[in-house]
Amino acid sequence: MAQTKHTWLFREGNASMRDELGGKGANLAEMTNINLPVPPGFTITTMTCNEYTELGGKMPAGLMDEVKIALADVEKDSGKKLGDPTNPLLVSVRSGAKFSMPGMMDTVLNLGLNDAIVESLIKTTGNQRFVYDSYRRFLMMLSDVAFSNDKNKLAKHDFEHIFYELKTKLGAKDDTDVDGEGLKQLVGLYKDHIKAELGRDFPQDTYEQLQVAIEAVFKSWNNDRAKVYRRKEKISDSLGTAVTVQSMVFGNMGEDCGTGVAFTRDPASGENKVFGEYLMNAQGEDVVAGVRTPMPIADLEKQNPAIFKEFQDVCATLEKHYKDMQDIEFTIEHGKLFILQCRSAKRSGMAAVKIAVDMVHENLINQNTAISRITAEQLDQCLHPVIAPGTKYSVLAKGLPAGPGAASGIAVFDATRAAELGKGGKGQKVILVRADTSPDDLSGMLASEGILTERGGMTSHAALVARGFGIPTVAGCSSIKVDAKNRQFTIGDVTVKEGDPISINGAFGEVILGAVAVVPPELTGEFGELLKWADETRRLSIRANADTPEDVELAVKFGAEGVGLCRTEHMFFAEDRRPIVQSMILAENDADRQVELDKLLVFQRNDFKEMFIALGGRAATIRLIDPPLHEFLPNLEELIEKVATAKALKTPDAAAEAMLAKVQSMHEVNPMMGLRGCRLSIVFPQIVEMQTRAIIEGAIEAEKAGIEAHPEIMIPLVGHVNELKWLRVKLDQTASEVVKSSGKTVDYKFGTMIEIPRAALTADQIAEHAEFFSFGTNDLTQMTFGYSRDDSDKFLKPYVENKILPGDPFESIDTEGVGQLMEIAVQKGRSVKPQLKIGICGEHGGEANSIAFCHKIGLDYVSCSPFRVPIARLAAAQANLATVERDK
Amino acid sequence: MAQTKHTWLFREGNASMRDELGGKGANLAEMTNINLPVPPGFTITTMTCNEYTELGGKMPAGLMDEVKIALADVEKDSGKKLGDPTNPLLVSVRSGAKFSMPGMMDTVLNLGLNDAIVESLIKTTGNQRFVYDSYRRFLMMLSDVAFSNDKNKLAKHDFEHIFYELKTKLGAKDDTDVDGEGLKQLVGLYKDHIKAELGRDFPQDTYEQLQVAIEAVFKSWNNDRAKVYRRKEKISDSLGTAVTVQSMVFGNMGEDCGTGVAFTRDPASGENKVFGEYLMNAQGEDVVAGVRTPMPIADLEKQNPAIFKEFQDVCATLEKHYKDMQDIEFTIEHGKLFILQCRSAKRSGMAAVKIAVDMVHENLINQNTAISRITAEQLDQCLHPVIAPGTKYSVLAKGLPAGPGAASGIAVFDATRAAELGKGGKGQKVILVRADTSPDDLSGMLASEGILTERGGMTSHAALVARGFGIPTVAGCSSIKVDAKNRQFTIGDVTVKEGDPISINGAFGEVILGAVAVVPPELTGEFGELLKWADETRRLSIRANADTPEDVELAVKFGAEGVGLCRTEHMFFAEDRRPIVQSMILAENDADRQVELDKLLVFQRNDFKEMFIALGGRAATIRLIDPPLHEFLPNLEELIEKVATAKALKTPDAAAEAMLAKVQSMHEVNPMMGLRGCRLSIVFPQIVEMQTRAIIEGAIEAEKAGIEAHPEIMIPLVGHVNELKWLRVKLDQTASEVVKSSGKTVDYKFGTMIEIPRAALTADQIAEHAEFFSFGTNDLTQMTFGYSRDDSDKFLKPYVENKILPGDPFESIDTEGVGQLMEIAVQKGRSVKPQLKIGICGEHGGEANSIAFCHKIGLDYVSCSPFRVPIARLAAAQANLATVERDK
Repeated sequence: MAQTKHTWLFREGNASMRDELGGKGANLAEMTNINLPVPPGFTITTMTCNEYTELGGKMPAGLMDEVKIALADVEKDSGKKLGDPTNPLLVSVRSGAKFSMPGMMDTVLNLGLNDAIVESLIKTTGNQRFVYDSYRRFLMMLSDVAFSNDKNKLAKHDFEHIFYELKTKLGAKDDTDVDGEGLKQLVGLYKDHIKAELGRDFPQDTYEQLQVAIEAVFKSWNNDRAKVYRRKEKISDSLGTAVTVQSMVFGNMGEDCGTGVAFTRDPASGENKVFGEYLMNAQGEDVVAGVRTPMPIADLEKQNPAIFKEFQDVCATLEKHYKDMQDIEFTIEHGKLFILQCRSAKRSGMAAVKIAVDMVHENLINQNTAISRITAEQLDQCLHPVIAPGTKYSVLAKGLPAGPGAASGIAVFDATRAAELGKGGKGQKVILVRADTSPDDLSGMLASEGILTERGGMTSHAALVARGFGIPTVAGCSSIKVDAKNRQFTIGDVTVKEGDPISINGAFGEVILGAVAVVPPELTGEFGELLKWADETRRLSIRANADTPEDVELAVKFGAEGVGLCRTEHMFFAEDRRPIVQSMILAENDADRQVELDKLLVFQRNDFKEMFIALGGRAATIRLIDPPLHEFLPNLEELIEKVATAKALKTPDAAAEAMLAKVQSMHEVNPMMGLRGCRLSIVFPQIVEMQTRAIIEGAIEAEKAGIEAHPEIMIPLVGHVNELKWLRVKLDQTASEVVKSSGKTVDYKFGTMIEIPRAALTADQIAEHAEFFSFGTNDLTQMTFGYSRDDSDKFLKPYVENKILPGDPFESIDTEGVGQLMEIAVQKGRSVKPQLKIGICGEHGGEANSIAFCHKIGLDYVSCSPFRVPIARLAAAQANLATVERDK
Repeated sequence: MAQTKHTWLFREGNASMRDELGGKGANLAEMTNINLPVPPGFTITTMTCNEYTELGGKMPAGLMDEVKIALADVEKDSGKKLGDPTNPLLVSVRSGAKFSMPGMMDTVLNLGLNDAIVESLIKTTGNQRFVYDSYRRFLMMLSDVAFSNDKNKLAKHDFEHIFYELKTKLGAKDDTDVDGEGLKQLVGLYKDHIKAELGRDFPQDTYEQLQVAIEAVFKSWNNDRAKVYRRKEKISDSLGTAVTVQSMVFGNMGEDCGTGVAFTRDPASGENKVFGEYLMNAQGEDVVAGVRTPMPIADLEKQNPAIFKEFQDVCATLEKHYKDMQDIEFTIEHGKLFILQCRSAKRSGMAAVKIAVDMVHENLINQNTAISRITAEQLDQCLHPVIAPGTKYSVLAKGLPAGPGAASGIAVFDATRAAELGKGGKGQKVILVRADTSPDDLSGMLASEGILTERGGMTSHAALVARGFGIPTVAGCSSIKVDAKNRQFTIGDVTVKEGDPISINGAFGEVILGAVAVVPPELTGEFGELLKWADETRRLSIRANADTPEDVELAVKFGAEGVGLCRTEHMFFAEDRRPIVQSMILAENDADRQVELDKLLVFQRNDFKEMFIALGGRAATIRLIDPPLHEFLPNLEELIEKVATAKALKTPDAAAEAMLAKVQSMHEVNPMMGLRGCRLSIVFPQIVEMQTRAIIEGAIEAEKAGIEAHPEIMIPLVGHVNELKWLRVKLDQTASEVVKSSGKTVDYKFGTMIEIPRAALTADQIAEHAEFFSFGTNDLTQMTFGYSRDDSDKFLKPYVENKILPGDPFESIDTEGVGQLMEIAVQKGRSVKPQLKIGICGEHGGEANSIAFCHKIGLDYVSCSPFRVPIARLAAAQANLATVERDK
């Protein structure tokens, strides 16, 4: 077998090699080949990283030999040599996975410096300050990524502390106030510190430096924050990172040097103009770390119109070449522009939609590409809340509009506490307030409604991440002073303490004192246009789960083509009905029960009538009562306590005792698998007879009001065909009697949920007696796995963390198991009735991967919550494109 | 299409036509064709009964025309004519289904009598008493079956009451004390009573009588007791009953006449000698109704040796012809023997086994037929308890040994109360004590441990039924006087009241005052011989579910070839261990938990050592901990009550509160689908690490004691292959460390339960990591149906009653749904590992139909409770015979 090639020179690769070279490496290769000004370099493949991991953290044999050969080529290209004091090559060593993971892994810059080269470089450049600045950065960075651990003090902040002390001693305010001599002194302090902590000198052998840096990048693939990020973004742990070694150019060699990060369009709004930030006399990390607040890219036009023009041309070339918005890192070295990196740019959901639609109008891409490019998460962001129109509020402070959407919550001052109190924790609404955020804050950020930072620009890593996940964020709000230690921030004489309510408006960078009302956004023109294209493209029909006329109106507004699930029992929970429902349950005999049911009939008939009218002629799948009746009664444990207390106090409560007796008699050990659904209806058919009557009478009344009704009556929890047969005969009779006595016609159907494994396995028998199927994938997932959704947290979390499961099967359909049952049901059902209408109404109906699966196995529709309808429309279109064709 | 033939003359049919003619009709045809003395007649097919039912209780068109034609043939054969006063034909009209349902449906005798014929017959026969006796019986019987309903008093007992009053008036003691004139008077009273109740005269048209009787028999197919019987016996409701119309012969025409019921062998013991009872000057119903206690058949030899000889020849002919023990009804009319019916005889389990083995030795049948002929229920009867050997007890009274087995319980005096208190009711052990039992008592009899009757013979219907279901029964114990009204019986000066404990010994007809200890029977020679043949015939291996060395010993004695399921957590419930288990659960940290686990290790190691020794080298499948931990803690509801009471009384109980907090934190909404099985083991691996250590150390200790151990460690509740992978790596390491440090070798395997639907669906993936599969069909049935076994009673009972389900899926495997998953698992598992060992350890493993299914789908073994092992051995052999060949 031929030896696998571990290293690829930029000119050997191309953009299609993302698997091997990572996104960054592939793009550098591509840019090199389209003649953009890219400093020479090479990339070590992602497979090499996996080899390294599999070898238990050992460099694969022969790797460094290949690196030497590639390095020789770079040395030849650049005319410099690594470790040569007379003409030293300095390189950057960067991570770069197939999918972008901004800031999650390690990078080393200025590699190749040592004491001798520093001496020599000072002579050559005559710029002592630049050389020592580079050296001190390099000492810190390599120590931080390669040598720092629990037992020593070689983390970045340890070095920053030493610098801080020196600055104090020297009376310097900013880093730039420290001159060459001062930095020389700092380098000495750094080297002493490294020796003291590490027990050896910082490596002076530049080749050893290179090997150490490559290893550090490999290792960083498996650091904790990278793993958290991948789990959230559903990136496979098996991809590995590539390592790109590239000759350095310097933005920090003087005031004619600079560095920046830019987007070819506005990543927040999507506006088609170059957007970004830069800093003169700085290296890239200064921009992205959020320590110095950078200048907007527009300022570059004033400062250096020629460079700006050149940069704009590069942007145009890249967009034309990649047919997508790019995120570019650049450096200016003594007035010469270098492009260090480009990649498809992260963008807000609103921007993603606008850019995709704009690019279609610009003839850069076609509609199908536009559809395919928007993720469900991006579309979801467009549906983020905004401050209720007309709300009067005063802005306390203004920062950068780093993440769209408005949010209200209590201020919290560290990520751990935010994770504890917020989403996934206690479920409170929290706003995370930080001086600046760091990748370590990820889980706390994800738990927050919104993020507010004092420092950091629009492209700081933390802001990028926040935007990627659609968390409303205001960054760089320098007028507030965050005091994390005392858990508060101040602005002027206002102090906001932990627990105080605040609000932010991410779209405009506004910070507001107190809570404000937030409402869902109006849908913009591009949003509507994209969804119109999606509607033309999809095969799946989209319905909504809606229990009230209000829900139906919202669903129709969002584009639902009907109701896929109306949970009739939700109508039982209303305050004016619950006492009747309780009396119905507690009735001693059928006659008493019927009296209560007759009262409920009046309510339900009107509910259905109004729902049919709101639907304006669209179909509605109405599920008959599903939960066990004891859900409508008081809580057993509270009753026991109440009765016991009353007895102990010798004030017995007869009513409570009677209720307790009834609740106890109805108590179930495993209610999820007890007397509910069609089982309940077979044992107590009166309830569903009433419901059927209410549906048909409601339909007749809607028709009298001029609206056609198409009720599809759905029987839940069928496991054996005979359950359906038995109930259908009974309810068909009720329905036809009502229709007959009305003298009207009603277009009603009877169908069944497929949510019990046995129903899927015997779907051929069931299809004989059903006019439609609807998968209840919540219950089907519960039964197929044997996981009670109410109890599964205790093991599902560790399961996902330990990769025992690839994800939470209640979020995205488990295609191997639950999906297998669905395929069996579709195949068997249609073997009997080729035209059988089949849909899904579990929560999976609004999740993109699940929708793709539903498309693949040939369902007719998906049904989801009204707010997920737009996402379902898009996902359905994408699913169809994936199976039909791709235009790129 | 040709008209379906509804009626078949006896000489047109044969024994193979049971489907069409019922067992009785087919046998009468067969007997006619082998020239036995059978009175002529014809049979209306079972399909005609179904037609009648489908027509909503209307006679099929043309049926009565066919009946007329067949009747003409019978009239020709017998030389008599229905309705002809000068030479009247009298007929019996009897039910007869494919499978015998003794006494469950209706029969009419002496049909064809009317006032005119009675007059004429008296003249012809000169026997006024006989004619009026026949007439009064006919009036009563036809009225009872055809005209009796809720609104009139035409049931048999109404007529008996009239007869009773007349006898009192006439000073007569027995029926036979009433002479011809008395019976004539009785007929008058009966006719008046009928007219008064019915509003019309009893039909004098003999042809109308015939039609009415045929309809009554059809209707009786769907009476309540027939339906209960069929459900219990698993006879399909769709079979229908045939109706046999046969010319009457009379056992009540004088003292040279008689009637009887006999078996070709002893139906209780199986002994090879004619066994039965007869009454002179009586009709058949007198024998079977149990009103008059009949004489043993042996007396016939003394009374009429020629007839007895002829009868013995008939028995021999029939056994040779049918190759099975027969149940025969016969009548002697003026010294001439007639055979009225023969059928395969019901017999006790013990008799069934003895007869089958004897017949092999007699070269009547071969071993395979012998095996096929024994039902699981019959074998089960052989395993019925007997009074503990050596028990001293005194016999209060003796009756007939009508049903084998000993039983102890409280006396109960009516069937309703027995059903209420006994099996399926409150679960108390009851002995039903009755003057005589009737088919209406069926459900009460089934709920009883034993039955004791004052009247009735060995062949009374009630005794037959009781024996069929293996209920220990003492019948015809005439020395006791049952006073049902006052709920007591007396014998001499002893009075036994309801609720008093009594015992019976069915094998010897003994009645015992008070409770006695009952123990399982020793297995007789024929029993062992039959099971040896079964062992030679079966392919499936049989294991037992056993949790203790005692269980293992019992299982091995019953023929188990290993342990298929040892539930390790059962060892946690012992009194000396439970406090340790609780401390383990309540431990605040892993170290504290380990201290308790180390204590448990000592117990479990010894448990396993002793189990391996008891197994004597056989394999044992040991399941790691399965239930949720809260099962080992106190009951939540009781704790709430306790804490609330203590609080109300201002005497707070801190320990109870702490325990309540813990129990609440571990409480689950649906524990069946919660943190249990391998989920628990993944979250808290310490417990199963301890168990694995205990198993391997126990195996090493057993080996030190000279016994080879073959532990098969089984992981429960796997739904995803990664669960198994994760645990197996961990436990394999524990096991191999223990083995390594011992310096011994242990033959251990790791496998998994298949009890989660998803596991069955992904069995190919799972098989890669399992050395064996064992189906847990209890859980698999729960999840596949979504039925909680703890809660399903509320709907399963109505489901089975309304035929929504064919039976309780927890009793017999639902082959369509659960079985389909099993087939998928077997096929997928073996697609990866062709030799994969697969068994079953749910309760279905001891149920005959389920065993047949397991055989069919290719399992390697079934495992069941020790007491079911013999039944499993037989069922496995039968399953193999069913697929291989039948020899008859």
